Amino acid sequence: MKIDGVPYRSLWWSEAEDALQIIDQRWLPHDLRIQTVRTLDEYADAIVQMRVRGAPLIGATAAYGVALAMSNDPSDAALSAAYDKLHATRPTAINLRWALDRLRDALGALDPDRRKDAALALAHEIADEDVGINHAIGAYGLDLLRDIAAKKDGPVNVLTHCNAGWIATVDWGTATSPLYQAHDAGIPLHVWVDETRPRNQGALTSWELGSHGVPHTYITDNAGGHLMQRGLVDLVITGTDRVTRRGDVCNKIGTYLKALAAQDNGVPFYVALPSPTIDWRVSDGIAEIPIEERDPREVTHIQGATEGGIGEVRVTPEGTPARNDAFDVTPSRLVTGFITERGICEASEDGLTGLFPQEAKRSA
Amino acid sequence: MKIDGVPYRSLWWSEAEDALQIIDQRWLPHDLRIQTVRTLDEYADAIVQMRVRGAPLIGATAAYGVALAMSNDPSDAALSAAYDKLHATRPTAINLRWALDRLRDALGALDPDRRKDAALALAHEIADEDVGINHAIGAYGLDLLRDIAAKKDGPVNVLTHCNAGWIATVDWGTATSPLYQAHDAGIPLHVWVDETRPRNQGALTSWELGSHGVPHTYITDNAGGHLMQRGLVDLVITGTDRVTRRGDVCNKIGTYLKALAAQDNGVPFYVALPSPTIDWRVSDGIAEIPIEERDPREVTHIQGATEGGIGEVRVTPEGTPARNDAFDVTPSRLVTGFITERGICEASEDGLTGLFPQEAKRSA
Repeated sequence: MKIDGVPYRSLWWSEAEDALQIIDQRWLPHDLRIQTVRTLDEYADAIVQMRVRGAPLIGATAAYGVALAMSNDPSDAALSAAYDKLHATRPTAINLRWALDRLRDALGALDPDRRKDAALALAHEIADEDVGINHAIGAYGLDLLRDIAAKKDGPVNVLTHCNAGWIATVDWGTATSPLYQAHDAGIPLHVWVDETRPRNQGALTSWELGSHGVPHTYITDNAGGHLMQRGLVDLVITGTDRVTRRGDVCNKIGTYLKALAAQDNGVPFYVALPSPTIDWRVSDGIAEIPIEERDPREVTHIQGATEGGIGEVRVTPEGTPARNDAFDVTPSRLVTGFITERGICEASEDGLTGLFPQEAKRSA
Repeated sequence: MKIDGVPYRSLWWSEAEDALQIIDQRWLPHDLRIQTVRTLDEYADAIVQMRVRGAPLIGATAAYGVALAMSNDPSDAALSAAYDKLHATRPTAINLRWALDRLRDALGALDPDRRKDAALALAHEIADEDVGINHAIGAYGLDLLRDIAAKKDGPVNVLTHCNAGWIATVDWGTATSPLYQAHDAGIPLHVWVDETRPRNQGALTSWELGSHGVPHTYITDNAGGHLMQRGLVDLVITGTDRVTRRGDVCNKIGTYLKALAAQDNGVPFYVALPSPTIDWRVSDGIAEIPIEERDPREVTHIQGATEGGIGEVRVTPEGTPARNDAFDVTPSRLVTGFITERGICEASEDGLTGLFPQEAKRSA
C-alpha cells in the first residue's frame, strides 16, 4: 500500500544491500524508519522486539531469516539452529512455525550447496503468496461489506481490533484488505479503530487508514460494547494469530471481549484468516495454545510523540506490579465466520475442512 | 484512608481558610496536590476537569458548592443559579443531582438569612453520610469475600474496573471498601486492577491499594476476559455512577464488557451501590441515561510521569479523529447483585425496593 503516495511493502529484498529491509514498526506511526537486517541475531531481535509484527509478517520475516542463515552456512546443523532460534522468538502466532517448517522441509531435501538460492527463492515465494492470499481475502470480504451497504443508509460501520493491516502482513493486510477494497470500490465506509492496549496498535491502523483516506475513528478498547448497544457497529472484522482445527481464534488480547459484545448485540463477528494461520494440529484453543506473556513495562509505560520527538510516560505509581498477556482465545461459538483466501466459511471444523480439505487431511 | 501513614479524606472543610480543600486528582498518582476551592466557578471547574471525580465525591463537592454560593448570596435566584451551574458540569452521575436536590429542597424552605449556615451543615452531613454508607457497604462485601476465601486455597482474586476507591468518595470508596476491610481482617486477597482507559483511573486504584498494602496487579482493560477464562478471577466488584430502578448499571466505559465476560465464565459480578446512586425515576439504562462524551484528546494523548516531572505523549498520528464516550450501561441481567449500605440484593426492581421501600415509593 502507499505511504504519502509511494507504494511500499512492509519488507522487501534489497539487491543492492543483498539483505532484507524492513520498516521498524516500533517508531510508527510517528516516524518511518527503514532497517536493513543482516545477521540471524538481528532477525530474531526484529521479531522479539516487534520491529516486525503481525502473524503473516512474522512468518515471512522468519523465512528470510533462514535464507540468511543458509547464505552463511548451508549445513544441516545451521538449518536446525536457525529454525530453533527463530521459532523461539514468539510462541503464539502459528505462521512462524508454518513458514519455518516449509523451509526446513524443502531445504532439508536439497544438497547443502543448493540451499542458499532455494531458501531465498522460497522466502520470496512466501512473501508473494501472502500478498496474493490477502488480496483474495479482501475480495471475499468486499462482498460482505457490499451486502451490508445495500441494506442501509449511510456508511457501513466496521469495528476492528489491533492492527491486522498491510504492515502486519507483506501487503494488503488481512482484516484491512476488505476495507481497502471496499473503500476503493466506492462503498461508503467508516472504521472504529480499537486502541489495542498495551501497545496501541490501533494507532498503526489509524495511520494506515488515514494514509489511504479511509474514514475512521480511534476509540478506547472499552468503547466497543457501548457502540454496539447503540447500533453503531454493523460488523466486526479482526485478524488472528492462530486458529484451531475446530475454529477457536487466538488473537490480540481483548478480541474475546469484542466477540462477546458482538454476540450480545447481534453484530456479525468475522475473522480474516489466511490459511497458513490455521493450526490443524490443535483443537481446543484455550487449552492448547500457548499465550505469550510479555514485559509488564509495556503496560505501565506508554510511548508516543512528544514536543521533542518520541518519548514515553509511566502511567502507574513507581513499582506497580503489572501483567501483560498478549493474546486471548475467542471460542468458535462466538465467531460468525472466517474470511479466507478461498471464500467465507463457518467457524467450525466442517467449515474449515470444507475449504481446505487437503490441508486438513495432511495434518490429521 | 491513609497516604504515607497520614489519614486523609478526599475533601475537607478548612476552618482556617473558611473554604473547601480537595485533592486535585489530575496529578495523581504522581503528585499529591491540595487545592482550596473558593468560587462557584472553581467548584464547577473542579468537577468538569475531574480534579474531583467519582459519583459520590462529585455529589459531596456540589453540596459544598451550594454552601459557597449561599455564603455570598442566599437569595432564591442565587440558589437556583448555583443549582443549574453545578448540575450542568457532568451529565451521567446521579449523585450530583441527588445532592443538589437535597440542598435545594432543604434551603428553599428556609428564610434566606438562615441558608448560609444550613447549607454548610448539610454539606458536612452529606460528606459524613457518604463515609458511613461506604463503611457499611464494605462490611457487607467483606462477608462475600470471607465466604469465597473459605472455599478456596490461596488469595481471593477480585477484579475491579476504574477507581471506585476512597478518592472517588469522601472515604473508604465503594468497590474498594470491601477490599480494605477484607485485607484488614486478614483475608488473603489479590486485586486485578483494570487500567481503565482513557484516563487510566486504574493507576489511582493501584496507588490506593499500594498505599494500603493490598496485593494487586495492574492489567490492561483487554485482559479481564482472558484471566476469567483461565480461572484467575473469583469475583468482580465495580462501582457505579447511576443505577436505574430496575437495576441497569451505568458505570465507566468498559464495565459492560467485563460483565459479559463474567457471565460467560460463571464469575459473580457485583456492583457496590450507595443508595444515593439509585435513580428511581428511570428504568431502562440504555434508553434513558445520558452518556457523557468527553474531549477526544483524553483518548489520543496520555499523561504520566516523565524524567522531568509529569508530561504527556500523543499516541495517534496527528489529527486522528477520536471519540470518547465516558460511560456504558450494563443491563441488570448481567449483574449478580448489589452491595448496598443496607445489605446485598438482587439486581432488579424487587431487589432494590426490598432494601429501600421508602425511597422507591417517594419517587414513584
